[in-house]
Amino acid sequence: MAESSSKQDYFVGVDLGGTKILAGIFDNSLKNLATAKLSTKSQRGVEAVIERVARCVQDAVDEADLSLKQIVGVGIGAPGSVDFDSGTVIFAPNLEGWKDVPLKKHLEKLLGVPVFVENDCNIAALGVYAAELKSKPRHMVGIFVGTGIGGGIVIDGHLYSGFGHTAGEIGHMVLEVNGPKCGCGNKGCFEALASRTAIFQRIKAGVKDGQKTLLTDMLGDDLDDLRSGDLRKAIRRGDKFVDKVIEEAAEYIGIATANLINILNPEVVVLGGGVMEALQDEMMSVIIETAKDYAMAGAMKGVEIVASKLGDDAGITGGAVLARREAKKA
Amino acid sequence: MAESSSKQDYFVGVDLGGTKILAGIFDNSLKNLATAKLSTKSQRGVEAVIERVARCVQDAVDEADLSLKQIVGVGIGAPGSVDFDSGTVIFAPNLEGWKDVPLKKHLEKLLGVPVFVENDCNIAALGVYAAELKSKPRHMVGIFVGTGIGGGIVIDGHLYSGFGHTAGEIGHMVLEVNGPKCGCGNKGCFEALASRTAIFQRIKAGVKDGQKTLLTDMLGDDLDDLRSGDLRKAIRRGDKFVDKVIEEAAEYIGIATANLINILNPEVVVLGGGVMEALQDEMMSVIIETAKDYAMAGAMKGVEIVASKLGDDAGITGGAVLARREAKKA
Repeated sequence: MAESSSKQDYFVGVDLGGTKILAGIFDNSLKNLATAKLSTKSQRGVEAVIERVARCVQDAVDEADLSLKQIVGVGIGAPGSVDFDSGTVIFAPNLEGWKDVPLKKHLEKLLGVPVFVENDCNIAALGVYAAELKSKPRHMVGIFVGTGIGGGIVIDGHLYSGFGHTAGEIGHMVLEVNGPKCGCGNKGCFEALASRTAIFQRIKAGVKDGQKTLLTDMLGDDLDDLRSGDLRKAIRRGDKFVDKVIEEAAEYIGIATANLINILNPEVVVLGGGVMEALQDEMMSVIIETAKDYAMAGAMKGVEIVASKLGDDAGITGGAVLARREAKKA
Repeated sequence: MAESSSKQDYFVGVDLGGTKILAGIFDNSLKNLATAKLSTKSQRGVEAVIERVARCVQDAVDEADLSLKQIVGVGIGAPGSVDFDSGTVIFAPNLEGWKDVPLKKHLEKLLGVPVFVENDCNIAALGVYAAELKSKPRHMVGIFVGTGIGGGIVIDGHLYSGFGHTAGEIGHMVLEVNGPKCGCGNKGCFEALASRTAIFQRIKAGVKDGQKTLLTDMLGDDLDDLRSGDLRKAIRRGDKFVDKVIEEAAEYIGIATANLINILNPEVVVLGGGVMEALQDEMMSVIIETAKDYAMAGAMKGVEIVASKLGDDAGITGGAVLARREAKKA
């Protein structure tokens, strides 16, 4: 594979989130050469966000001392349901006004480069699968715990997206009928029990009820600027309350992991997302122990449960993997 | 396809259950020509059960006025985890002493015909998929509600069995953390909430608590001979208590269906098994309504939820489909 640098192919991966846009330049071996970041500013409308995505891609390309002409393709993960074939974002609840947005078409016009669109968790799963697991396991499930919870499924080495491109909506798997209310309108969804949103709500409710925690010493009584990293700091300083909330969330993640192992019997389950990135040392052993308790012995046999090391880069890496895959087909 | 009858291929499908063995003879077009049934008598030991399976196959072959020489292959569904490649039953909790039983090897010795072994719910899903849905949907999930609850998953037209051949253990998906105790040792599994066992337990507990029901008039206070069909009769005669228990079970089945739709976004979900066969008129509308409530709108779009018409024959039909598939490969 000793190609001269002029013959090298470059790919862009983009993670379009509700609050920020992240773009990364990757070479053929999935090495990350440069990244760029912009806030999403979803309130400015669909067109403005697409222009910001294009700008973020251009910033990253420039950062890597490249030009758009050297880019073979752009793979982008969007936070919602996506029709891969047309590159349309069907619906993205965390982006204002995003309904049936032909993202591929618009971005290709702005960038002059082939663009491929997938669901953000699917693309993150693809990134973890290709870059971190070297595409070795036959079947993999990715669980991404952040503001919300999403998943991505790899079956027989390929991303599985289902009949209507929505597979992997594991955040709305009900774990506790009549449990806490979820943003989707139902009760007891995985996301309502173990996402950052759910964890923060439980902590704020506890503080309101007079619960003592180091977090209020660190951040003030309203906890307005609370971040996952603060929870880690509080736990390491001996905060029993935060420790208990995080242990509970880890138990729910373990139960959800067991459900997915019982249903899909994958070779590997990978846990990623912002909450896992900040708190994996605190959560992983509880997650694995709980999953082993709840999964059927046969279904669990030989199955690995691991934390992703890619963190926030899973999405952009997956975008590059997607662009590389599609470029090979072309 | 106009072949003379002497050139016709015949296949045997076997459903090996905890209480009974069912064998059926099928032609190339999956027409069922004859069946035979024997009780399993699992307490007599592994070898005795295998001999009974062989006898049941021979009875069915004889019933169809055929001889074993005309049989191309036998497909058998076993109630546990199965290693398809070796034809070994790894573990079958409802068959006494069944651990690492080389069923394929033993049966081939007894019958002189190629034998293929799969998990019983996988094989039932395959039967429904090929015979009832004519292999049309790309992705299908089968949910079988009987004494226990199991599932089978078809992805891209192929039975999906996972890394260790255990995929589809949907009966042990937790729906209600801290819910009723399940046979597996955990709490709140789907099976502990909606299987025949769970339904009967709830009815018997109600009767013990003084609940009025027509069932005690029909069967006596101990309800020893209670069957799913009795529940249907009681409901049709206006039994409010039984109606409520069945509605609750249907709601749990609907929630489990929604979970599977959110995770896998199949094209079709098929509901089968003894409970569904007896009570589908009473349960299906509640199941569909609840699934629509709990599934994400995008994930539900265009997805069909249907009751299987194959009933108890799903297993033997799937066995024949499996044998036919493997015969084609050979």
